Amino acid sequence: MQEQSSQNALVLEKKGELSIREIDVASHMGPDDVRIKIATVGVCGSDVHYYTHGRIGPFEVKEPMILGHEASGIIVAVGANVRDLSVGDRVCMEPGVPQPLSRASRLGIYNLDPDVRFWATPPIHGVLTPRVVHPASLTFRLPDNVSFAEGAMVEPFAVGMQAASKAEIQPGDVGLVLGAGPIGIMVAIAALAGGCSTVIVADFAKPKLEIAGQYPGVIPCDLSETTLQEVVAGLTGDWGVDVLFECSGAKSVWSGIQTLLKPNGTIIAVGLPVEAVPIDISSLSTKEIVVKTVFRYAHQYERAIALISSGKVDLKPLISATYDFNDAIAAFERAAEGRASDVKIQIEMPDL
Amino acid sequence: MQEQSSQNALVLEKKGELSIREIDVASHMGPDDVRIKIATVGVCGSDVHYYTHGRIGPFEVKEPMILGHEASGIIVAVGANVRDLSVGDRVCMEPGVPQPLSRASRLGIYNLDPDVRFWATPPIHGVLTPRVVHPASLTFRLPDNVSFAEGAMVEPFAVGMQAASKAEIQPGDVGLVLGAGPIGIMVAIAALAGGCSTVIVADFAKPKLEIAGQYPGVIPCDLSETTLQEVVAGLTGDWGVDVLFECSGAKSVWSGIQTLLKPNGTIIAVGLPVEAVPIDISSLSTKEIVVKTVFRYAHQYERAIALISSGKVDLKPLISATYDFNDAIAAFERAAEGRASDVKIQIEMPDL
Amino acid sequence: MQEQSSQNALVLEKKGELSIREIDVASHMGPDDVRIKIATVGVCGSDVHYYTHGRIGPFEVKEPMILGHEASGIIVAVGANVRDLSVGDRVCMEPGVPQPLSRASRLGIYNLDPDVRFWATPPIHGVLTPRVVHPASLTFRLPDNVSFAEGAMVEPFAVGMQAASKAEIQPGDVGLVLGAGPIGIMVAIAALAGGCSTVIVADFAKPKLEIAGQYPGVIPCDLSETTLQEVVAGLTGDWGVDVLFECSGAKSVWSGIQTLLKPNGTIIAVGLPVEAVPIDISSLSTKEIVVKTVFRYAHQYERAIALISSGKVDLKPLISATYDFNDAIAAFERAAEGRASDVKIQIEMPDL
Amino acid sequence: MQEQSSQNALVLEKKGELSIREIDVASHMGPDDVRIKIATVGVCGSDVHYYTHGRIGPFEVKEPMILGHEASGIIVAVGANVRDLSVGDRVCMEPGVPQPLSRASRLGIYNLDPDVRFWATPPIHGVLTPRVVHPASLTFRLPDNVSFAEGAMVEPFAVGMQAASKAEIQPGDVGLVLGAGPIGIMVAIAALAGGCSTVIVADFAKPKLEIAGQYPGVIPCDLSETTLQEVVAGLTGDWGVDVLFECSGAKSVWSGIQTLLKPNGTIIAVGLPVEAVPIDISSLSTKEIVVKTVFRYAHQYERAIALISSGKVDLKPLISATYDFNDAIAAFERAAEGRASDVKIQIEMPDL
Repeated sequence: MQEQSSQNALVLEKKGELSIREIDVASHMGPDDVRIKIATVGVCGSDVHYYTHGRIGPFEVKEPMILGHEASGIIVAVGANVRDLSVGDRVCMEPGVPQPLSRASRLGIYNLDPDVRFWATPPIHGVLTPRVVHPASLTFRLPDNVSFAEGAMVEPFAVGMQAASKAEIQPGDVGLVLGAGPIGIMVAIAALAGGCSTVIVADFAKPKLEIAGQYPGVIPCDLSETTLQEVVAGLTGDWGVDVLFECSGAKSVWSGIQTLLKPNGTIIAVGLPVEAVPIDISSLSTKEIVVKTVFRYAHQYERAIALISSGKVDLKPLISATYDFNDAIAAFERAAEGRASDVKIQIEMPDL
Repeated sequence: MQEQSSQNALVLEKKGELSIREIDVASHMGPDDVRIKIATVGVCGSDVHYYTHGRIGPFEVKEPMILGHEASGIIVAVGANVRDLSVGDRVCMEPGVPQPLSRASRLGIYNLDPDVRFWATPPIHGVLTPRVVHPASLTFRLPDNVSFAEGAMVEPFAVGMQAASKAEIQPGDVGLVLGAGPIGIMVAIAALAGGCSTVIVADFAKPKLEIAGQYPGVIPCDLSETTLQEVVAGLTGDWGVDVLFECSGAKSVWSGIQTLLKPNGTIIAVGLPVEAVPIDISSLSTKEIVVKTVFRYAHQYERAIALISSGKVDLKPLISATYDFNDAIAAFERAAEGRASDVKIQIEMPDL
Repeated sequence: MQEQSSQNALVLEKKGELSIREIDVASHMGPDDVRIKIATVGVCGSDVHYYTHGRIGPFEVKEPMILGHEASGIIVAVGANVRDLSVGDRVCMEPGVPQPLSRASRLGIYNLDPDVRFWATPPIHGVLTPRVVHPASLTFRLPDNVSFAEGAMVEPFAVGMQAASKAEIQPGDVGLVLGAGPIGIMVAIAALAGGCSTVIVADFAKPKLEIAGQYPGVIPCDLSETTLQEVVAGLTGDWGVDVLFECSGAKSVWSGIQTLLKPNGTIIAVGLPVEAVPIDISSLSTKEIVVKTVFRYAHQYERAIALISSGKVDLKPLISATYDFNDAIAAFERAAEGRASDVKIQIEMPDL
Repeated sequence: MQEQSSQNALVLEKKGELSIREIDVASHMGPDDVRIKIATVGVCGSDVHYYTHGRIGPFEVKEPMILGHEASGIIVAVGANVRDLSVGDRVCMEPGVPQPLSRASRLGIYNLDPDVRFWATPPIHGVLTPRVVHPASLTFRLPDNVSFAEGAMVEPFAVGMQAASKAEIQPGDVGLVLGAGPIGIMVAIAALAGGCSTVIVADFAKPKLEIAGQYPGVIPCDLSETTLQEVVAGLTGDWGVDVLFECSGAKSVWSGIQTLLKPNGTIIAVGLPVEAVPIDISSLSTKEIVVKTVFRYAHQYERAIALISSGKVDLKPLISATYDFNDAIAAFERAAEGRASDVKIQIEMPDL
């Protein structure tokens, strides 16, 4: 099984240069692995950023790298130890593979394992290619009523789920999401599914607010027309929201942020500012505000899939366009445009 | 303001004897109180039990007592210190009044204050009467889109909310409710609103399962046709549910209960068995199961109302019949029948 | 009981001017109150700051104000409703009196009630005066083996207890305290009593580290000789501490702070920087660090007294000097010097 | 490295029959393993029970089995992937080896992995033998100031640590331990180290109470002379203890147990009753009591070792006698006597 295979793939040759071509990929399959025929892959902001900038923080594209990490597919082979999955199962996959014996993994916080290998994060290849080998323990069966397209949405939705899980929402809590980009919308949906009665979603971009506003329970807040203080006061009086999800990454939102929150309220910092942001500890202290940060996700796939399958969460309205694999470069070019009305672009692999 | 008033009321004269008549009620209104004109009152199982048995545990009906504690109404007067409520506000009320300075109250667990005075729990009068004085801090404004009938459902729903809150549901968890009586249904609805992807509701009574089954996300489990083990395995494989809400009060359910739960799963014991139940600690230990008990509710009204108002929770299908106050005795007689298809009987006060 | 009394007191006439003189104080005693003869009062940094600066943030000394809020004493009268305290009881008192019916108080987070009235916070008088009336619910009996001097240490220790409680310490955790001032030392003692196996206490001032170093379990870290990174690595390898208590209020400590912490580690922000500090959310996120802020304390007195009485906590070494009330101005002058070897200056009231 | 070795060992041939003899043990060492020369092994109640009864629940001794699972030693070889341990390191070991990829292990609750292989639990051999191979991830370095004897105490102490961790002790909480056997004492020590101000330890056996009473903070309660109610009331008034650790396994203690606890108090069920115990859910509910069960331990070794090394926990007084390996059968005979004044019997391996 120590095979090496040449496969067709969407390859980021270097910053700004994509090609669809054959590339050698290691494809050894261990006893705890499965082999998956890829069906659908979503285009993530990070994929686009590697394409347009060639790096994200310390991660630099130095060698040609296959892009894509939001994927679903169908199992075509299973390793000897695999008991819970079978050939023919429709699945989606967690793209980050930790060391199972690391201290973080043993504690159950495998997303924080510093040695995690994450698809399409240099120098690890992504999955815009027909076949991939992956640990069975990070591969999750899709119920019949969850499509491949939805399966490929589980990865970005898991980011929202991680934020909602950290928030320790009490049933009926009021949430506030700053920033209506794809992650902000995913967080809002997860927070509603996770127990919020209503979630205010605030942004300056009308098209994004329109998309968010489709979801029952979302209260869009157009910051070009009103202020957060006004909307929060209208909903909660002088009390404040229970949990605030900061998804904008903007520096300015932190000033006076405690006025939006209830005493003992929680801020989940999801957006990643490019530099340090000024935070007024003394003002946060008067309300004993808690700030939690999140990093990717852990243990969210099963619960995310359950929510989609049960009908509580519908991610289909967020799929803005679907491209054939042969048009994958066009898909990336559109994603790189960053249209305000686009949430998620997906690529369908050919049925080889 | 040290007034004493004679009011018309539904009075439980003694076990088995109800009358509608004038009765003297103390009606002093302090500076932190409001006076409420009652609109709608739900009939609770405890009201019926006092009627049919004359007592519940240590609480015995020794003097004529007004029944009813699930109530909504409209404010007709406010005390001098009251800032957040005004005359004309439509409201619902928590029926238990704790000592604000008791140790439990100061800790925020006022439901556990042993000196709590609870409507229609001897010797405290209930509210099936036109006017009542109540602390403003236990009186909650109803949004315009929440009717008096729904407002009177907040009290029983708060029981479900307390159970769901204690469960510390993670978004997408799978719940299991044993017993599809009114409380079991309230718990299932609260658990779904509070983050469960699906909730199995199990009972032997088809009419109850049909009512529960109306709610999206509920999986009815007819125990006359299948077993819990089978349904749980179908949904979760050999893992088990995340949280089990025991709402039947039955003794037998505790045997082998750990087989239904995931490792580290939680049992919320809502049903109150009449005597001690045999629990196999050693078997629960193999999965480190946690058992939490609940007593009424605390801090649930605002979040319950928010869920109803936002549309996430619809309690209207649970109102089985509505009687005029003049027919209140008939309402109690019907409630005492315990029809399987009845969830909640309500009584509307005359518009005096 | 609507008495008004003229009492001798240490009065801050205005910024920089103290006098010991008679002053009128309202002394109405309600049914839930007790009257206390003051025994010992500690001098807090905030008392000194009002003396030297005339204000703290929005709180400005506009009228003569009695100073002092860290106090113990003996009960000389009890209100009609008081059941748990008696004349002759030796006690210490929480200086902040919230509105019992406020929303925050009802939730049990009375320290966050915006309407709290706090001793020696303008315009509320403090207790460097022979008699004071106080709610019984905020007055705590001292066991026989806890002296008045220790009783007056409960208030500053409660600040440490609040921080340690928020930290949700697991038995054997490793703590790190930045800043060895009085609060840093209180936090370190509380963290050790609260379950830490060891607590690194870091500062540049040797005399402060010597005081902290007296306590078993404290590892003093002299930042003029070594770095935090080195000490943390020596103790935890490349893992990091479980909880970091920021007690310095310094801006610079936040840069790279995540390198000192384990994945999922917690920062308790106790020190209050005078302006916003730059915090690198993205770096904190790689470890999912949580930042919690604290404000005074709630529900800490009983547990603090229990720890002192049981012998687990010894605060006596922190009492640097004791002055007679007649020398109270000298006590404040010494406190204002800010000697590095002084932790707490106390003032004893005359035995009137 | 696929070696098979014949080693001297203490072998339980069958119920009631021990011998010291050569036996074949598989000794393959993988890349993530270490080989340990055993130094000290404690005798556990379960070892004795297999000796005297031949089984514990479903685990039956059908083949000769080496006993012993509370062990310390010194590393004599390390696998290729092992980075954090070296030859010559003094260590102690967790005896239960889970499947690292099981769902429970991935969640961090590896103690609940149903496929765990646990030393001296049929058919898995224990470690009363000179050499053993073990996963490095379950092997923990002992600081210089922790002896092999103390290292072999970490395993039983970890049981106490698991109970104390589950209790979520707030600093200064009052604990109550029912049953002063070895586990009860371990729990009391862990609860004190973990933040309790005092722990009442209750039993009928004076010698056990004398041992427990050596520890500062323990309040021995001789049930032949007083009642729990009296002792709890003396310490907490009518409030109750914060956490109750049930370590007796007795059926009778559950009746009225809620009277010993504060509202919202926690029971940690450590003792394992041989059959179901009657628990009065309705009475527990009036205080919203929580019951948590525990199973062995997870993630406790590092924190347990830290507490021993820092001096906060001293387990040496619990080592009642030490036998040479050649006298191991005598050690078991003494342990089987169950002397009330014996806590732990240890066996030292020869320095081969």
